[in-house]
Amino acid sequence: MTSGVALGSRAVAGRKVTARKAIASKPRASVAVRASGDRKWNFSAGPAVLPLDVLEDAKEDLINYKGTGMSVMEMSHRGKDFMKIAEEAEADLRELIGIPANYKVLFLQGGASSQFSAIPMNLAPEGGVADFILTGAWGKKAYEEAGKYMTTNLAASSKDSNFSTIPDVSDWKLTKDAKFVHICSNETIGGVEFKEVPDTGDVPLVADMSSNYLSKPIDVEKYGIIYGGVQKNIGPAGMAIVIVREDLIGKTHPLCPTMFDYKLMADNDSMYNTPPCWTMYTSGLVFKKLIKMGGLEAVEKMNEEKAKILYDAIDGSDGYYNNPVDKKYRSLMNVPFTLGGGEDLEKKFLKEAAAAGFESLKGHRSVGGARASIYNAMPKEGVQALVDFMADFKAAN
Amino acid sequence: MTSGVALGSRAVAGRKVTARKAIASKPRASVAVRASGDRKWNFSAGPAVLPLDVLEDAKEDLINYKGTGMSVMEMSHRGKDFMKIAEEAEADLRELIGIPANYKVLFLQGGASSQFSAIPMNLAPEGGVADFILTGAWGKKAYEEAGKYMTTNLAASSKDSNFSTIPDVSDWKLTKDAKFVHICSNETIGGVEFKEVPDTGDVPLVADMSSNYLSKPIDVEKYGIIYGGVQKNIGPAGMAIVIVREDLIGKTHPLCPTMFDYKLMADNDSMYNTPPCWTMYTSGLVFKKLIKMGGLEAVEKMNEEKAKILYDAIDGSDGYYNNPVDKKYRSLMNVPFTLGGGEDLEKKFLKEAAAAGFESLKGHRSVGGARASIYNAMPKEGVQALVDFMADFKAAN
Repeated sequence: MTSGVALGSRAVAGRKVTARKAIASKPRASVAVRASGDRKWNFSAGPAVLPLDVLEDAKEDLINYKGTGMSVMEMSHRGKDFMKIAEEAEADLRELIGIPANYKVLFLQGGASSQFSAIPMNLAPEGGVADFILTGAWGKKAYEEAGKYMTTNLAASSKDSNFSTIPDVSDWKLTKDAKFVHICSNETIGGVEFKEVPDTGDVPLVADMSSNYLSKPIDVEKYGIIYGGVQKNIGPAGMAIVIVREDLIGKTHPLCPTMFDYKLMADNDSMYNTPPCWTMYTSGLVFKKLIKMGGLEAVEKMNEEKAKILYDAIDGSDGYYNNPVDKKYRSLMNVPFTLGGGEDLEKKFLKEAAAAGFESLKGHRSVGGARASIYNAMPKEGVQALVDFMADFKAAN
Repeated sequence: MTSGVALGSRAVAGRKVTARKAIASKPRASVAVRASGDRKWNFSAGPAVLPLDVLEDAKEDLINYKGTGMSVMEMSHRGKDFMKIAEEAEADLRELIGIPANYKVLFLQGGASSQFSAIPMNLAPEGGVADFILTGAWGKKAYEEAGKYMTTNLAASSKDSNFSTIPDVSDWKLTKDAKFVHICSNETIGGVEFKEVPDTGDVPLVADMSSNYLSKPIDVEKYGIIYGGVQKNIGPAGMAIVIVREDLIGKTHPLCPTMFDYKLMADNDSMYNTPPCWTMYTSGLVFKKLIKMGGLEAVEKMNEEKAKILYDAIDGSDGYYNNPVDKKYRSLMNVPFTLGGGEDLEKKFLKEAAAAGFESLKGHRSVGGARASIYNAMPKEGVQALVDFMADFKAAN
C-alpha cells in the first residue's frame, strides 16, 4: 500500500501514528480498489463515474438490445425500437423532475458550451440586455459568449473572493426588462453552489446545471431555462438537456444555426436530425435508476450524507486539508481542497492517491490542488474510502 | 418463415416456384437472422450496422477498459487513458485515409447538419458567394443553411431528373472567386454518388461525405473540406469528422458560435470542451479494423462486390424491382428500389422482409419504396441473404 511506502520513507514519530497505519494500511488498500472487476473510485469532474448497474445493463444489451437484433448504437433513430427509448427517456425525466407541461425538454448535441451561444440566439433574437451572475469559470464563459449576440451586464460577481461564494441577491444590480438573468447553479471548478433559487420576477432565470443536474429536487417553474451537459451527473458525454418554458421560444436570431433553434428542435421532439442515440439511451437508464431510488429527494439526502463525510474530514483535519469555499455555498458535487503543507505535499498526496486507486483527484489545471467530484453515481463507500485514505496520509505525512 | 406464410396464403402456380420455395424457405430463414445472438441484417440508412467484432470489443471493455478501472464513458477527457484513445483515433484516421500534414482533423459534436452552418461561418466570415451542386436532399439542406450567411449560387442541379443523376461538370455554372464549391458526395436518400472528384481549380471543394465516408479511398488534396456525420459508415451517432486544409481557417464570422470555430477546435485538438468520448472511442475501433482489413482500397473492393450483388439482382428481375438511378452514378452505399407491382406489393414486401429479420428496408419517408443501405459493416452474406429473399418474394408474388 502506498501509505505504507510513505511511512517507510519518512521518519514518523509516535506510536499512535504507527498504530493507525498498522490498522489502516491493509484493509483500506482493498477498499480503495473495488472488488468487482477492479473498478477504481473515480472522482473525475466529468466525464465521470456512472452507476455500475447502469453500465452492467448497457453491457448486457450492447450487441442485441432486448431481442431487437441490434445494438442501440445501430438503430435507426426513426425506428420503433429507438423511438420507444427516446420517448421513455423524456417521460422518465419529466416524472423524475416534475416538469410542467408548458416546458419543453430538448436533448441536443454539443454540451453546455453550445448552449452558451444558443441561449442568446433564442431568447434575444433582436438583442437587448442579459444579466449575468459570475460565481466561477463556467458562468464567465457563458457571459463572454453571450456578448457576441447582445448586451451583457455583469450584475454580480464573486471574483473578488476568488469565486469562493455566491454574491448576496440583495446586492445584484439587475437590469429592468432584461431578456434573462443567467446563473451557473454549481461551479465545477470552484465547488460553489446556489442553495436557493433566486427570484428574478418576470425576467426569466436561466441556469447552467451541468454539474448538479438531478442531484436534488428542481423547482422548474422558477426558471425560464434549465440546461446542462450530461457528462457530469447523468450520462456519457455528447449531449445537453435543455428544459425551456415554451412561451420563451419561437423566434431566433437570423444567423442562428438551424441546429440551435429551440423551437424547431421542440417541434421535432429533438429529432430534426439524428440525435446522440447512445447517450440518450444511457441517460435514460440513469433516469429510471433515480426514479427507482426514490426520486430527487432521496438523491439529495444521499448526496448530503456523502458531502458531509468529506467536508467533516476536511474541517476536522486542523488545517491539514482545506476547502476554500464559504460554508453556506459549498457544493454537494465538487469538493476542491488544498493541503496546508504546500504544493510538494499536495503532489505527493495526489501521486499516492492515484497509486491507491483513487482516480482523477487532481484539481482543475486553472486552480491546482485536489478536487473530489462526488456526483450521484459515487457511492458513499467511495467517499468513505477517500476520507480513510486522507486520514492515513495525514497520519503518515 | 414469412415467405412460407406468403406461399400458403396465396395461390402460387407452377412447380418451379414451389420448388424454389421448398429449397429456399428453411435455410434462408436461418441466414436472414444471424446465429450469433440473433442479430438481424440491418439495412438502416443511419444510425446503421456496426462491425460485430467492434461491438464485441466495446462490450468486453465496457465496464473496465483495459484495466484502467473505468468505462471509457467515465474517463476524464483530459486523463491519460482517454487522451491515448483520442490520439490513436486521429493517428489511425490519418493513416487510413492518408491525410496530408497541412490538413487538420476535427472531431466535433453535432452531426453534418451543424456543419451546414459552420462551413460558411468559417470559410466566408465576410460573406461572398458559394456554389452548390444539388444532387439530393442533403445537398439542398446545406445550400439552404449557407444562405443565411452568404450569397449562394445554384451552380447545377439534378432536380429535373428527380435527383437520379449527377449533372455533368461541364454544365456547372461556377462563380469566379467563389469562396467554395459544395457537393454531397453520396446522397443517402436518392442513392446517387459522385464517382470522380470534380476539379474546381483554386476554389476549395467542400464535400459532405456522411454516407460514404471511408467507403473507398479519398484523395484529400483535391478538397478544401471533407466532412460528415459518423453515424452511417463509421460509428455511433453524435459526432462529425471534419478534415480541413489549414490555410482555409483562422477567421470566423463575428457571430460564429465558439463551438463552431474550426481554428479554435484545431488548436485544442478537438478538446476545447468535452468531446463525445464514447463515439470517438468506438469510431477509433472502426479505424483500426479498416486498417487491419487492408485499408480503403480493400474496403472499396468489398463494397463494389456487395453492391454488384444487389444491383445485379435488381437489374435481372425484369422490372420486378427497379432502381431509378443513372447507372453511372449508382451509390455503393444506399440502394433505393421500388417494386414494379406497385405500392401494395411494396408494403407486402417490406412487411415480410421485416418479419424475416431484414431490418429498416423501408425507403425514406420523403420518397417511399425500399432502400438497402449496405455500408462497410454490412457483410456480403447479409446482401446475399437479401437478394435471396428478394428472389423468393418475386417467385411467390
